Amino acid sequence: MPHIQLNNDAPGIRSLVIYRPDTGKPLYELAQALLRAGSPDSTLSDAERELIAAFVSNQNCTDFCRNSHAAASRYLFGEQASIVDQTLQNPETAPISTKLRTLLTIAERVTADARTVTDDVVATARAEGATDGDIHDTVLIAASFSMYNRYVDGLATLASDDPTDYVAMGERMGTLGYVVPKPN
Amino acid sequence: MPHIQLNNDAPGIRSLVIYRPDTGKPLYELAQALLRAGSPDSTLSDAERELIAAFVSNQNCTDFCRNSHAAASRYLFGEQASIVDQTLQNPETAPISTKLRTLLTIAERVTADARTVTDDVVATARAEGATDGDIHDTVLIAASFSMYNRYVDGLATLASDDPTDYVAMGERMGTLGYVVPKPN
Repeated sequence: MPHIQLNNDAPGIRSLVIYRPDTGKPLYELAQALLRAGSPDSTLSDAERELIAAFVSNQNCTDFCRNSHAAASRYLFGEQASIVDQTLQNPETAPISTKLRTLLTIAERVTADARTVTDDVVATARAEGATDGDIHDTVLIAASFSMYNRYVDGLATLASDDPTDYVAMGERMGTLGYVVPKPN
Repeated sequence: MPHIQLNNDAPGIRSLVIYRPDTGKPLYELAQALLRAGSPDSTLSDAERELIAAFVSNQNCTDFCRNSHAAASRYLFGEQASIVDQTLQNPETAPISTKLRTLLTIAERVTADARTVTDDVVATARAEGATDGDIHDTVLIAASFSMYNRYVDGLATLASDDPTDYVAMGERMGTLGYVVPKPN
């Protein structure tokens, strides 16, 4: 049960955004800017952005965010959807580009302790073709999911255990993006 | 030196918001909604909100955010400004209300691992007079500074070592709030 009276039974972040639209609006606008629009010079696809979000949420053990963003990433990867679970299981052996692998290393460090993002780890990503926009967006996706995860877990919001719920959620996120939900 | 070319020499989060106004806008709107407006039923003052932000940034060892939000809190506390440093040093002995002390415990847990915000720790805050809005805002301030801190540190933004710079910053934050800065 959530720690505060949210007056709706939506799951995860959606319940919080319905409860507090004034903070919900910038939270969703940030997600849309980062997971859809992206930096002008970024080479990351929407599917890869969602994968970074799921990867960070997995590291933070936030089931709702991991499951929903993994579902969105699977939807966006289409026929290559198996990449998502392979990456969450082991990014070292997953069939992703070396560039994305180096960016996931940056995301992992931001999530654990952002002061460990060294010049070396950034130079390695750059050598594999990562642009300034890729590095910026990776750092801010990891940082923002360190927030979304804490917000969802810190208030003990509801999360479904039914995988089919996340399939529907992933399709909605993959097609509509991040639109502030209306109250039930 | 920052990890990416920001094309401005502003410090900390300001350099990132000038570099990327599309993500900067929701980041500043979120700060304004949380550190100034607050929940309708919240009892927290602006000075206390800034103190929670400084406390979390201190826990995350992000000098720029700790120093600037501590300065804003000192400015807003006015004659009681010494509360800020006493709290950063030891919240157990600082001359703050028991309610604020219990909220700082929640903030500390959100920052370390939000899954450790138990029913008990929330009930303790509530018994000291914390409202749903206080609990919500404390969790989201702690969560959002877990983002701002990582964003600032993960891209190695500039931070001044000169305490007088932060005094000016704190006064600006205390009077103007969070307004997206213009490019230099």
